[in-house]
Amino acid sequence: MSKVNELFKSELKVINIGLTAFADSLRATGYKVVHVDWSPPAFGEDVREALDKFNEIVISKKVDIEKANEEAFKRLVSARPKLVRMGKALDLIPGMKSNMLLHAGPPVTWDRMCGPMKGAVLGAILYEGWAENLEDAEKLAQSGKIEFSPCHHHQAVGPMAGVVSPSMPVFEIVNETYGNKAYTNMNEGLGKVLRMGAYSKEVIERLKWMESVLYPTLSRAIEYLGGIDLKNILAQALHMGDEGHNRNRAATSILFRQLAPAIVKTTSDTDVVERVLKFIDGNDHFFLNLSMATAKASLDAARNIEGSTMVVVMARNGTDFGIQVSGLGDEWFTAPAEVPPNALYFPGFTKEDANPDIGDSSITETAGWGGFAIAAAPAIVQFTGGTPQEAINKTKMMYEITIGENTTYQVPYLNFRGTPTGIDVKAVVEKGIPPFIDTGIAHKMPGIGQVGAGLVDAPMEVFKKALIAFVKKYS
Amino acid sequence: MSKVNELFKSELKVINIGLTAFADSLRATGYKVVHVDWSPPAFGEDVREALDKFNEIVISKKVDIEKANEEAFKRLVSARPKLVRMGKALDLIPGMKSNMLLHAGPPVTWDRMCGPMKGAVLGAILYEGWAENLEDAEKLAQSGKIEFSPCHHHQAVGPMAGVVSPSMPVFEIVNETYGNKAYTNMNEGLGKVLRMGAYSKEVIERLKWMESVLYPTLSRAIEYLGGIDLKNILAQALHMGDEGHNRNRAATSILFRQLAPAIVKTTSDTDVVERVLKFIDGNDHFFLNLSMATAKASLDAARNIEGSTMVVVMARNGTDFGIQVSGLGDEWFTAPAEVPPNALYFPGFTKEDANPDIGDSSITETAGWGGFAIAAAPAIVQFTGGTPQEAINKTKMMYEITIGENTTYQVPYLNFRGTPTGIDVKAVVEKGIPPFIDTGIAHKMPGIGQVGAGLVDAPMEVFKKALIAFVKKYS
Repeated sequence: MSKVNELFKSELKVINIGLTAFADSLRATGYKVVHVDWSPPAFGEDVREALDKFNEIVISKKVDIEKANEEAFKRLVSARPKLVRMGKALDLIPGMKSNMLLHAGPPVTWDRMCGPMKGAVLGAILYEGWAENLEDAEKLAQSGKIEFSPCHHHQAVGPMAGVVSPSMPVFEIVNETYGNKAYTNMNEGLGKVLRMGAYSKEVIERLKWMESVLYPTLSRAIEYLGGIDLKNILAQALHMGDEGHNRNRAATSILFRQLAPAIVKTTSDTDVVERVLKFIDGNDHFFLNLSMATAKASLDAARNIEGSTMVVVMARNGTDFGIQVSGLGDEWFTAPAEVPPNALYFPGFTKEDANPDIGDSSITETAGWGGFAIAAAPAIVQFTGGTPQEAINKTKMMYEITIGENTTYQVPYLNFRGTPTGIDVKAVVEKGIPPFIDTGIAHKMPGIGQVGAGLVDAPMEVFKKALIAFVKKYS
Repeated sequence: MSKVNELFKSELKVINIGLTAFADSLRATGYKVVHVDWSPPAFGEDVREALDKFNEIVISKKVDIEKANEEAFKRLVSARPKLVRMGKALDLIPGMKSNMLLHAGPPVTWDRMCGPMKGAVLGAILYEGWAENLEDAEKLAQSGKIEFSPCHHHQAVGPMAGVVSPSMPVFEIVNETYGNKAYTNMNEGLGKVLRMGAYSKEVIERLKWMESVLYPTLSRAIEYLGGIDLKNILAQALHMGDEGHNRNRAATSILFRQLAPAIVKTTSDTDVVERVLKFIDGNDHFFLNLSMATAKASLDAARNIEGSTMVVVMARNGTDFGIQVSGLGDEWFTAPAEVPPNALYFPGFTKEDANPDIGDSSITETAGWGGFAIAAAPAIVQFTGGTPQEAINKTKMMYEITIGENTTYQVPYLNFRGTPTGIDVKAVVEKGIPPFIDTGIAHKMPGIGQVGAGLVDAPMEVFKKALIAFVKKYS
């Protein structure tokens, strides 16, 4: 009895992949069909050509892409980011100016800024005292007197709107392996906060308190501790249900445990100590900005590796989604940012209220955690939507488009497998699998704040553009 | 074509359960066989008879066992344990005497005590100042002048040796739903500690510091906070990779976050505050004793439900393993304690050094977490041995022998399924599935301390004895 005969004599069980028509006609004749929704990457002529040229580069050995990616990956995973000190943005951040506001994502002008970013800019103007009221603030923002610049152009990252103004206190993180530095501001909490586009009196007052009380207190404690090992905290947190983007409860807890005794030793006013500790305790996302700066410090060491297709930045300004690639210098590849299709909204809000994807926080996915490590954080689905099984599948999928696994950051449930790390532009395009991001969602209007959290794929367009630029440069 | 014909025409795929002989002969003729190693519970005549009588009770409706178990389960899961205050054991623990030492597990006399329990008793005598040196301490222990009594006879629980002496500070936990109270001492940390049988100078000095500095500091903070909701902390911790027995890093972190601001407000000496915070931060098991008292306070409310087969205590004294059952009053059912067959030992130690299973900490499994919730804590296998998949399987198995699921304590990876809760003596015996415990391991000699952690099954014997006693009482 041949195998084929066997097949046709046994009951037919069909798994149909792709076009539904086959499944439909089989079902119509009474067969059981499991349908898997998948379509092969739809390549345009330009992408097909780019993939062909890519193979020519590989064959011609004009540049050793594999070796370049190995080097980029090695630099990324061997980074040792340490929080060393705090200071004012104007004093610490390279290229910061007294009339400059940093923002998230790729470059964007005032007229193209989305609602929450405009809101954050207005809030920052009020915070700096550059205007007395909202009307004047808006005039100033439009006037051209303020210089807008992406955080990423200044070794910095900011969540959501990512607006950093000159007086704002920032953390300085040093990558002890390679010496490069990264900067980020302090996390304000959830809801009505500047980074989500809110600018009301309470928002500005909180920022002022953070500058005058929280900053000097933390600053002294960090100095007293001789710095804080962020890599160690993040590695522990992934064993404790965090993924380092939208779930930071464990990392915030570990940071709190390290900071508290030092704060007690370096700040004598017990009311201040109590309020500072309660502020951090009251915000499970306090570690988020540090997770992002950990990612930034790790990835910056892997920039400008000749011939590498590894992504070193994914960032959103709420209008555009942009990436940068190690072998392609400082060029941005952008496409329109999308509203997360799957999300959980806070009571009173719906998808109609949501701004498209925004923030530098996708630097965590770029570095191999956040959405890429979501299988380590099953409880996150109560905040972002989805199920634990979907979370596991998402992480597994990301191994398809990454260069390696970071054994420092592990997914316990996948038997301590290292997280999928180092996005390969070519793999993304060729396999048609976009990087997966879990993200906070801001209201699309300025002045409101966060409305939910959700799951989103990076737009394929930016990876196609990057691949085309790559083969153009290296052919 | 009939179904049977279909079956025989298609390729034969066999799953063989039980006797290997069938699998072997099929394999010999070329078939693929998956063999599952399982054997039906081997009942002795007495157990078979007990199961028959049990069914007679059910049919005769002499007592409504199902309803009794529902009530016991309801009481267990509706408990709201809150940490309300601290005090000296002699002042707070019911029935505590000035010449009494409490210990873990079922009753045991000095001559039958295992090494680590003897070590802890000697340490406690030195700590109380009842003897000046080890020799005198041993004489006193043998003299009969000290009254030994199980923690469980005094609404108390203690990990490992579980020795509580009159001057020792203890936590008082109130079950706010039912008003009953539970007590436990403070956790000393890992390694050379009294509860593991160590009694050196550093051990006694640490206990003295805990009494004179840590206790009053924590006591003031707890009062300032108006108590601490332990149920809430444990529920969060299970979303953060703890299981509440051998992994308490998350719960300790959350407790730390709540305590720190209150300690700052209520203790003016910053050196003391710093040292206290560092002590708690330095011991990821600090919450263990509170997890145990949470379990004890929850289970005590479910005691003495007429007709209930639910286990309300599982406890080990390092010599005997004992259980108590809701419908069987204060009677202990005991069997020899076993050395955990699967364990990870600290460097320099092996299974040869291990004492048999010891401690009241299996109260956590009795209440539905610990080993029963190990699927929530995949990273624990790095401490106890095993793999994350085995951990998931263990939790799944425990649903077979439990009355219900506690929706407050969830396993995120099992799609937030409530933990398997309320061990049913009859199900354990009938299905031949023993309750699963993850546990610390003490050196078998007094004076040494912890040597590892591992996984162990409760001995079936105690459940058989309890079932026989149950049918005797209710027939």
